[in-house]
Amino acid sequence: MQALLAHTLENRLTGSEMTMKTLNTVLLGFGAVGRGFLALLQARHAYLQERYKLRLNLIGVATARRGSVFCSEGLNLAALSAVADRHLSEYPEQPRLIRGLEPLTMLSRPAVDVVIELTPTTYENNAEPAMSHIRTALAAGKHVITANKGPIALAYPDLVAQAEHRGVFLGYEGTVMGGTPALRMARKTLAGCHISEVRGILNGTTNFILTEMERGTSYAEALRTAQARGYAEADPTNDVEGFDAAGKLIILAHVVFGKALRMTEIDRRGITGLTPEAVQAAQAQGERWKLIAQATLQPDGRVSASVRPTRVPLSDPLASVSGGMNAITYQTDLIGNVTLIGAGAGGEATAYALLSDLIELAEWL
Amino acid sequence: MQALLAHTLENRLTGSEMTMKTLNTVLLGFGAVGRGFLALLQARHAYLQERYKLRLNLIGVATARRGSVFCSEGLNLAALSAVADRHLSEYPEQPRLIRGLEPLTMLSRPAVDVVIELTPTTYENNAEPAMSHIRTALAAGKHVITANKGPIALAYPDLVAQAEHRGVFLGYEGTVMGGTPALRMARKTLAGCHISEVRGILNGTTNFILTEMERGTSYAEALRTAQARGYAEADPTNDVEGFDAAGKLIILAHVVFGKALRMTEIDRRGITGLTPEAVQAAQAQGERWKLIAQATLQPDGRVSASVRPTRVPLSDPLASVSGGMNAITYQTDLIGNVTLIGAGAGGEATAYALLSDLIELAEWL
Repeated sequence: MQALLAHTLENRLTGSEMTMKTLNTVLLGFGAVGRGFLALLQARHAYLQERYKLRLNLIGVATARRGSVFCSEGLNLAALSAVADRHLSEYPEQPRLIRGLEPLTMLSRPAVDVVIELTPTTYENNAEPAMSHIRTALAAGKHVITANKGPIALAYPDLVAQAEHRGVFLGYEGTVMGGTPALRMARKTLAGCHISEVRGILNGTTNFILTEMERGTSYAEALRTAQARGYAEADPTNDVEGFDAAGKLIILAHVVFGKALRMTEIDRRGITGLTPEAVQAAQAQGERWKLIAQATLQPDGRVSASVRPTRVPLSDPLASVSGGMNAITYQTDLIGNVTLIGAGAGGEATAYALLSDLIELAEWL
Repeated sequence: MQALLAHTLENRLTGSEMTMKTLNTVLLGFGAVGRGFLALLQARHAYLQERYKLRLNLIGVATARRGSVFCSEGLNLAALSAVADRHLSEYPEQPRLIRGLEPLTMLSRPAVDVVIELTPTTYENNAEPAMSHIRTALAAGKHVITANKGPIALAYPDLVAQAEHRGVFLGYEGTVMGGTPALRMARKTLAGCHISEVRGILNGTTNFILTEMERGTSYAEALRTAQARGYAEADPTNDVEGFDAAGKLIILAHVVFGKALRMTEIDRRGITGLTPEAVQAAQAQGERWKLIAQATLQPDGRVSASVRPTRVPLSDPLASVSGGMNAITYQTDLIGNVTLIGAGAGGEATAYALLSDLIELAEWL
């Protein structure tokens, strides 16, 4: 009874007066985030129906090197889970199952309502193939949800306009701070406030390395630890030179200020030049080095943006953000600074971002 | 163009297809928060119409000792602002203006759509007169928005049920963390996550005192500073003995867990027993004393709750919260810990909470 009362207001919007909505969904890419999403779907299937009148029907999964499966009547989640880290040819036979569809073919099938884009991309090669998947899906009138930073950072205005033109939904919560709802907070929860500055720790890998260096290890040693734990890539350039944080800053500038920002317009510096001595000198003076990404709306309407190692005093909430955590401080006119701290990565957490976009889509439909 | 694109999704919900909604609003109580709301209304009137198709028409203000004004066609905001800290008999004459209506009479007038309840209350005397104002308004089919903790902490299930029964909206975002959207984050932004624990710094007065004591001042001296700056009342019991934080914890338990919690069920201890020596000993060991309010959902469905001074390590984001700031950490199943840090009080910030409730009401209608 109490649990019901507590959600009265939402029930008005999502409850018994509404009819069940079914969304036929395909996953493009099936790595850690895709598998996290599958696990989440299994765990929350009944809850989503009950609470949001949303029936998520997973009808296809396409990968680049491990095959694909598609069935317009729905895949068996338990069977898919059992072969999730193997080749999808091991997924068991079922009536009307189609194997081997290419991503672009699968997403265009009439039965598909929502395309979840999770293929591996970088900022090189114009964020392909994710970019083409998203553009093709929007053009075909499909809703698109992605955790891929590249396409959103590089083509946000275009993609939003394309979605608008086709009357479909484009969700991208997972592109910044993983599962922590940083973009939704700026778009929805701070409705009515004007945000003049965004300042944050947007890359968990570099924050982990800087935290390690505070224990006296060198940059090279800390990087090796990060690589050994899977936090850093074999080629760490994207993280340690600040490209990843800069890409997220571009997305934030779009979402928060409605302004386009290019990678070349960001004053970007990485952490590779920091010495253990510098890190410890800051600590001795009650400060911590953090890779701070900052975008400020100037009085003339331009956005100035930087990503650079910065000494942050302990009185700043960003100084308390350790290890792989991320944080954003929004500077607002009405309520001052609001800081959100949470995990910035992880398959399960990022999968939650996809789910939260699906819930927003269901409410929007 | 970019600014428009950035808000495409919200425009779907709030934009051109929707007709303008007018909400005739009365204010009960006209202290710092009420005056902050008036200033906000003046500053955002055009913006609310343009962005949310919401026309807020302030038609009445009632106070206990400074009279009242009411005009079903709307008050003149500039004229009201000019007399905001004086007796309302100084508000200039206008056609069909009614003076001297009691709050309960004013809120029942047919022209009223929304009652904003801001009269001074404590937890004593069953949070009257705010409680009666809210109950009467809901019974009369009016939407109610309040920043008054007392009625929401003491009677949340009843009030929500009454609002539900009458099909009206009950907004209370301003009751916890002032303008920082802590409740909305739990209710909306974390949709789909299960929250198992809430842990936070919910009282700015005690946090200010504890921050002062870290500079070596005694509790008594720090309290005097807080009183001189208007952060603490002449009788500081409600803050320093943890009653204020406990009341907010009751509201959080309702909203987050859907569970009723009584003041007597909270293991409550204040900060009056803390010595400067204890405060500095913690600092020397890399920790800070904070008045931590915590509510945990137990496996058997009960909620265990406490408010007590706690030593918090600097690695905990709550340790970075200084002075009058507030913070909440939500422990979730899908994305781990999410911490929100922001101002916990202030007339303008709390007025923003009222505005955010009005925007939610407009979307809900």
